[in-house]
Parts: sequence; C-alpha cells; structure tokens
Amino acid sequence: MMQSVDLLVHSASQLCVVPGPAGPQRGRELGTLGLIEDGTVAVQDGRIVATGPTAELRARYTARHTLDAHGRCVIPGFVDPHTHLPWYGDRANEFEQRLAGASYMEIMAAGGGIMSTVRQTRSATLEALVADNLPRLARMLRHGTTSAEAKTGYGLETAAELKQLEAIVALIERQPVELTATFLPAHAVPAEYQGRTEAYVELVIAEMLPAAAKWMAGRGVRLYCDVFCEEGVFDLAQTRRILEAARALGFGLKLHADEFAGLGGTSLAVELGAVSADHLVQTPPADIAALGRGRTVAVSLPGTPFGLAHRDYTPAGAILNAGGALALATDCNPGTCWCESMQMVIALACRYQGLTQAQALAAATLNAAHAIGRGDEIGSLETGKQADLLILDVADYRQLGYRFGANLVHTVVKRGHVLE
Amino acid sequence: MMQSVDLLVHSASQLCVVPGPAGPQRGRELGTLGLIEDGTVAVQDGRIVATGPTAELRARYTARHTLDAHGRCVIPGFVDPHTHLPWYGDRANEFEQRLAGASYMEIMAAGGGIMSTVRQTRSATLEALVADNLPRLARMLRHGTTSAEAKTGYGLETAAELKQLEAIVALIERQPVELTATFLPAHAVPAEYQGRTEAYVELVIAEMLPAAAKWMAGRGVRLYCDVFCEEGVFDLAQTRRILEAARALGFGLKLHADEFAGLGGTSLAVELGAVSADHLVQTPPADIAALGRGRTVAVSLPGTPFGLAHRDYTPAGAILNAGGALALATDCNPGTCWCESMQMVIALACRYQGLTQAQALAAATLNAAHAIGRGDEIGSLETGKQADLLILDVADYRQLGYRFGANLVHTVVKRGHVLE
Repeated sequence: MMQSVDLLVHSASQLCVVPGPAGPQRGRELGTLGLIEDGTVAVQDGRIVATGPTAELRARYTARHTLDAHGRCVIPGFVDPHTHLPWYGDRANEFEQRLAGASYMEIMAAGGGIMSTVRQTRSATLEALVADNLPRLARMLRHGTTSAEAKTGYGLETAAELKQLEAIVALIERQPVELTATFLPAHAVPAEYQGRTEAYVELVIAEMLPAAAKWMAGRGVRLYCDVFCEEGVFDLAQTRRILEAARALGFGLKLHADEFAGLGGTSLAVELGAVSADHLVQTPPADIAALGRGRTVAVSLPGTPFGLAHRDYTPAGAILNAGGALALATDCNPGTCWCESMQMVIALACRYQGLTQAQALAAATLNAAHAIGRGDEIGSLETGKQADLLILDVADYRQLGYRFGANLVHTVVKRGHVLE
Repeated sequence: MMQSVDLLVHSASQLCVVPGPAGPQRGRELGTLGLIEDGTVAVQDGRIVATGPTAELRARYTARHTLDAHGRCVIPGFVDPHTHLPWYGDRANEFEQRLAGASYMEIMAAGGGIMSTVRQTRSATLEALVADNLPRLARMLRHGTTSAEAKTGYGLETAAELKQLEAIVALIERQPVELTATFLPAHAVPAEYQGRTEAYVELVIAEMLPAAAKWMAGRGVRLYCDVFCEEGVFDLAQTRRILEAARALGFGLKLHADEFAGLGGTSLAVELGAVSADHLVQTPPADIAALGRGRTVAVSLPGTPFGLAHRDYTPAGAILNAGGALALATDCNPGTCWCESMQMVIALACRYQGLTQAQALAAATLNAAHAIGRGDEIGSLETGKQADLLILDVADYRQLGYRFGANLVHTVVKRGHVLE
C-alpha cells in the first residue's frame, strides 16, 4: 500500500541524517554522522516522515513533488546560533581606514566602532531596519542557513532595543529563515554612559529587562537574554546580576564570554543553566572543565578571529576532550565579521580548530540547534523534525571544509518548501 | 544624434573603471581606481564603447538591452591568473585524514598527495576530464571570474600533459570563462622518476616541450611554460634550463617561486622576462628588489597559506614599496587550496597582506590581466576593452574584502552577454 506525501528528495549520493541526540548531553557525540548512501527523505506537512535507502522509500511512498538529488549529498539545513542581525548600515569605511593604517583608537575617536552602528541603528526607522536586513537573510539562506539566532544590542536604550525586537518579528514574518530572538542590551556601554557602567547596568535591570519581558509576554515571543562579559565592558559580577534578573523574568540565557580575556563567564553560564556560552577563545581550563559538567553548549565563532586577522581560535579539541558540546556560528556583524556563510565557518573550524568535516557539520547543524534550544525540532533529518535540508552541489559531505570560498549549496528546502 | 548600442548597464551607484594602465609598468599604480558615481557603460559587439555619468550616456545612447544597476556597484570581471584546472577527482579523504591527525608523510606513503591527482588525471578520458571541470568553471563564473589561467601539470608524461591541453581547449569551447593555457610538465617529479629528477628534466626538455610546441603550432593556441621551482622539487639551475628551452620554442614564461623556500626563482623570472612569478611567500629581499626593476608581475595566492593554515603570506607591502606590480589569484587546486572565488582571495589579501580594498580590486582585475599577458584586452572598463563586468549586490566596492564568505555577485556580463 503506497502512502502519498508532499515531497520526496530522492537518490542522494549521501543522506546525512546526523542521528540520535535529543538534547545537549547526547549532542556531544560529534563525528557520528548517520550516512545513508543512495538515500531518500519523505516530507509531509513540512516535517520529515521517513528517511532511508531510495529503493525502500520509493516502494513505500508516492509524492506530489519530487527532487532528484542524484550525484549530490543531502544534509540538514545549517543553523546559525549567533548573529548580530538586525543592524543598520555598514562600516566598510572603517575597514578601509584600518587597512590604510589607522589605529582602533583613532577610528573610535572619529566616532567609529560599535557606536557608529548604534547611531545608525537608533536613527533608522523600523521599516528601514527591516529592509536593510532582508538581503542579509536572503544571502544566509542562499548559503544554506535555514534557522538562525538574531539579537538586539545596537539600540542600547529601551526604545531602540525594542525596535530591534520588533524588527526581528517583522523579519520572521517576511522571509523563510526562522529566527530565535535574543535581548542584548548589555552589548556595550553606550556613549552617554561612558565611565558610568554601573549606572547603565542599573538601567538594564530596572528598565530594559522589564520592558522586554513585557514585550515578550505581549508578543508571545520567547526571548533569550545575553551579556557581553569582557574586560572593559561588563565584568563577571555585573554579568551575573543581569543574567539572574533576566532569569527571574523568564528569559532563557546565553552569554558572550572569553573573546579577548577569560573572566569566568563560561563557568557562570554553566552555573546559571545558559543554553550557550559563545566565543570562548581565551577560555581558562577551569571553564573548559565546567562545560564538560553542564548542559551549556560552547558556541565557537571562528569568523571573528579570522575577520580580525587574529591568531587565536576556540580550543575546540580541549572542549571536546572535556566532554563539552561544541557548535559553530557566524557571529555575523558589521564590525568584526560580516559573514553570512556557515560554509565559511566550517572551513575555518577545520583548519584552525582541527575539527573533522563530520564534527564541523554536526556543530553547524544539530549542536547549533541545541545552542538555541531547538535541538528537538531542527538540526538533523530525523522523523518528526522539520524538513529543513540542503541539496549540495557535491556528492560527498566531506567537500565541506575541504573546499572554501565558493557556495556549494544547490537547493534549499525549508519546512518542506523548495526555495531555490 | 542618438547612437544605438547592444547594451547599456546604467545607473550604477559606483562604476569602478580602474583607469589607465596599458602595461605592467603602469599596472603598478594600485589604489587609483577611477570611480564614477551614478555611472553607465555602453557595450557594442562585446566591447566597451563608452563609460561615464548616467545622464551623459543616456543622452548619447539608446540600447537594445538595458540592465539597471541602481543601488549596485559595477566592477570589471575578476581575472584569476593562476589556477590548476583542469584536474580530475578530489582529495577530500586526505583532508579528513589530515584533520584526524595523519601526517603528510603517512598520506604520501598511502598513495596520497599530488600523485593521487596525477593518477586520477592520467586515467580519466578526455571527455571525463572536461566534464569534471565544467562545474568548477561554472562556480568561478558565478563568483565573478570572467577570465582565468589553466594549467597542465597533473599528467607528468607527454600524452597526459597533451590531454590536459586538449581539455583546456574543449573547456574554452564549452563555457564562457576565457582560459589562458600554461604548460607545466615540471610541476612535480612523477613517481616513476623518483630520485631521478635530472632524467625527468631531460624528458621535459627533449620530449615534452617540443611536443607541446608542435601542439601549440597545430592548434594555434598561445602557451605559457611554467616550472615549480622549489626546494626538493626543481632547483634553480633545472628551472633555468627548462624555461630557456621553452622560450626558445616560443612559449611565454611563468614561474612558481618562493612558496616554501626562496631559491632565487623570482629574480630568474624577471631576468628571463616571465610575465609573472607566482606564490612569493618566502621571497628574499634581493628578489623583491628585482620585481621593482622588471616587468614581471608578482602573483600572490593567499588562498594557499590559508588552505594549509600556514601563517606566512606574500609580503605585499614590501613588493609594492619596491615598485613591483602585484596581482591576486586563487591557485585553485585539489590539494592545498580548492577555492574558486576571487572574492575570498580579496578578503584574505586585505586581512593578511594589508591591501586596501582598492589595491585588492586592482590586483584581482587589471594587474591579474597583465599577469597572463592580457592587460590590453581585459581587467578594466575602458573604451575598446572587452565588456567583462560584474554587477555586485552592494553599492560600494569597499564591501569587497570587508565582507567575506558569501557571494556578492549579482550579475555577470561576459563579452557583452548577460550571463546571470
């Protein structure tokens, strides 16, 4: 008895199912890709109803729509669990100034750096902010990202931070990449609070978090709260206060930690049950060990040291050896790393963090899904999960990372819809 | 009186004309982009007949076909003056073995390394070799490369080297990216000549070069001859003998030099009037100075140190300070650097070689054209040159290099044909 389904993606040279993990604990089992040669996926109502050998599935299913993936491999859609969308404008001029020899301090003194993006984002209308970010999401999708995280943090005042949240909602409605929203009012100390970090932390706790919590309740959107815990920005005690206040208001937690200095943020993230701790370049051994004991996913952002031409990357091997779960993300932002492509991130992680292609792929899909709390819904091609998948232009998933710079995505399928 | 032309690409936010240089001597003047805001290009019979402000050109020309580049910048098509196309197969498995900890020697002992590609290329039929390389060229084109160099060097025996030349001719006929052909029988010492490098050099000079010269005359294809001058491969004296023999037979000259050790190859290239010296990572000061005195273009291949996760890159600043002409290329090959994208190369050159976006763009277009002897035909948007141009998805050329990992090409125009 043949069953009819909406879509069969059939005859893939490899179907990378990425089997198993239902939570971060199991998400740690990197490098255990479930590979089906000559594989097929059956999709109904935007969800996967079966995966298996082509001969078997073609005997069981007929489909209203079929995609022939002969000679091509099929993998889960990439999940990008750390981006700084939505922002307004760009800083290509600063990049040029740096290349021409200007120092960071000279650029800051001329009004550059993050405050330049804050000014541009504050003064943009909601509609302009949304329009400026649609091409970025389209580019992410073309390069295979089917779900991503998006953050505030370029408002740094209540109304502008809420405008960024509204922009995220509008972007969710207007294009296919699913977005998980994070509230990051403690991304930097705004110019008007320079030298008064404590006063800004008070504003975040007393006004901004409650306003976002109210917005969250009204909008029915689940929010994470994040803090940039870094030397010269928010210290560990300030970070703890903000995150504890956020947790009490019902936010999930994430954390920027150890990008330039290890302040203990990663251990704090584990202690507070944060879904992820992100950057983790200068992470001290005690914090790496903490990752092995908790459920917090380590999110590595190798595009950022690359973007800055720095030499230190996330100690991925040490994190895996300690039993930590590792995910990859772009950190897409207009200052240090304007990169929409998870393929680029995989190429960096293989070269500079020693991940095999299988480890990098799991880190860019299933573990990345866990890093935004969605490991049960997306990130692998298992029955019941959303049908978010990529047909690559290559027959072997191991071409990812090995090749770099060019887009290897042939077709994107999001919730069962064939997009390109 | 309105003049009718085939195509007007109009209203570009920036038209990057890259003015002036007619030869390598003038090609050195990097960083002097000619930028026209709200610019238009008029094209007739595949050639540029005018560039200028949109208002001016729209008053002078009507066109059978128009492309609106509003909000987008227009630049010359990228020229990639150093690739190792055509080869057969891939070495993704070796990349995986390296990441899993295998040493270079272990991989070589298991039959890996360049000899793996040589075996695959030798045993491929001409038709299979052509078919294997068409997708690579399509990917290059999608990422903006409109002309490239292609090499032999995976045959390492007369018949297989000539088969690679035939494949280049077939690829020229079957797709739009123009290819300049280079004969590189001295790319490596083949397995059957291990320990007998001198005997292989004799074979190259006595049999292979004359066979290729005869092929060149019969086919009417201009060939360059290239040698991999490197420690443990071909030394300076062997390189000189091969290049002098090639020059006497009518080949143009190019040279792989200083990738891992500086043997004096760059000075030799200048002395012999080679059109380019390529790699130039460990180039000694005397060789850098020689570049300032000659017409040989220094071709930097930053994708290769990146591909190998090495830390040393071409000393671009020293070359420019010495008065040398600098070009960029991908080195696209299946071993150290499988990268089809000149945008990726620009991103690397800005970060690791300190080029400004303007310098990198000139190096990836006009100077790259000079590095394959075609600076009079392609590489800039000047009247009389081929209409090879790109409409980018961004309004400012300085987004190149600043952004990385994602493809910023919107439309490719090759010889006046709108390709995508």
